Amino acid sequence: MAESKKCDSEESVTLDLLKKKMDDFAKERDWEQYHSLRNLLLAMVGEVGELSEIFQWKGEVPKGLPGWKEEERTHLGEELSDVLLYLVRLSDMCGIDLGKAALHKMELNALKYPAPLKNDDHRN
Amino acid sequence: MAESKKCDSEESVTLDLLKKKMDDFAKERDWEQYHSLRNLLLAMVGEVGELSEIFQWKGEVPKGLPGWKEEERTHLGEELSDVLLYLVRLSDMCGIDLGKAALHKMELNALKYPAPLKNDDHRN
Amino acid sequence: MAESKKCDSEESVTLDLLKKKMDDFAKERDWEQYHSLRNLLLAMVGEVGELSEIFQWKGEVPKGLPGWKEEERTHLGEELSDVLLYLVRLSDMCGIDLGKAALHKMELNALKYPAPLKNDDHRN
Amino acid sequence: MAESKKCDSEESVTLDLLKKKMDDFAKERDWEQYHSLRNLLLAMVGEVGELSEIFQWKGEVPKGLPGWKEEERTHLGEELSDVLLYLVRLSDMCGIDLGKAALHKMELNALKYPAPLKNDDHRN
Repeated sequence: MAESKKCDSEESVTLDLLKKKMDDFAKERDWEQYHSLRNLLLAMVGEVGELSEIFQWKGEVPKGLPGWKEEERTHLGEELSDVLLYLVRLSDMCGIDLGKAALHKMELNALKYPAPLKNDDHRN
Repeated sequence: MAESKKCDSEESVTLDLLKKKMDDFAKERDWEQYHSLRNLLLAMVGEVGELSEIFQWKGEVPKGLPGWKEEERTHLGEELSDVLLYLVRLSDMCGIDLGKAALHKMELNALKYPAPLKNDDHRN
Repeated sequence: MAESKKCDSEESVTLDLLKKKMDDFAKERDWEQYHSLRNLLLAMVGEVGELSEIFQWKGEVPKGLPGWKEEERTHLGEELSDVLLYLVRLSDMCGIDLGKAALHKMELNALKYPAPLKNDDHRN
Repeated sequence: MAESKKCDSEESVTLDLLKKKMDDFAKERDWEQYHSLRNLLLAMVGEVGELSEIFQWKGEVPKGLPGWKEEERTHLGEELSDVLLYLVRLSDMCGIDLGKAALHKMELNALKYPAPLKNDDHRN
């Protein structure tokens, strides 16, 4: 029970859940007609622009956003989400399984940039 | 056991799983020092550029990518993934729960753009 | 006289003129402190996002923008300009002569993609 | 003659000159068919990505790029140019006079953000 509860909780939002929700959202509004691949791609670029605007005049921003107000964090969360949601939708309209592709890409990255052996790996 | 297995399967890749994997990846390579917020943001913009390059000379591309070779689909999946992985990492370094934020943003979108009533909703 | 007039006219706006105007603009407002390279770069990415938003839901748009209202054209001109102005400013802050660099890049492009011989070049 | 020579020199590269050169370049290669508005826009986004890659792992970079090698500066100049050239071409294909639009936008900016009076303006 604990397992399944954790699996459904907000802490474990799946890419498939977002894909499904975006699809329902578009269908309910008859917006599928607008969701061509390049429309979605440009919409995502627009959201990346809005995300960049948050960081544009700040110089480097420390991790964890110390000193940011709650409303600024919320706004940032919304812009990060907008990028994610269009990315999920674009992937879906391309017929690409984004979660699977991401896991595969991480495997490629691990091959391309092998982790150095740790000190205690040297001992024997 | 079945629950936890399903939870880990590729069909239900969670944002938290990707976050954890990206964090492990960075720690193993001592790359956390490079993962400042604006470094990650610009790296993501770089990947958005690579994604755009795939679509730049094609005119509109039909959904499902009919006629695309398997290697082209794989390449596209990699670029979509690169955007996702930097987005996940940036969100984590900001201390933003991306999955939670995305669900919240979809609720806001639903309020902003209410779905029209369906025909059978009018009947009574 | 006609030459110099043409040279100064709006039809022949130079990159150096824009650079000078942007520099004066920043100095007059004491904004040089904000014009670090990555601030300007992210500001430009933000403007690219706004430009993309204009085109995001339109599908392909025919050349010359037939059917666009004057105010839509003006808005588009403003967004194109915003990208240009930050690009000019970023180049200046990098110490790069953008006009010279652009001419040089076109020469490289001409070498990389040689123009095919024209029909009348074949005749002799 | 001196006037026209100055007008053509590298120090005074006009946006119109770049527009003309891009148009000739496309015509000579029969590339006009590829230069639809959204193709050019996405190509520009691709170049913005390449520009961002130069700055992505560096943290903040001081003005004037102290310590950068000549080849790094040249590479940066090429990426800045690529953004400019696609921007010029996109504007041309839209039928927008980019130089005129940029001067107009700077006037709007001056109205939106009036320069503070200088000290010596207060004296009388």
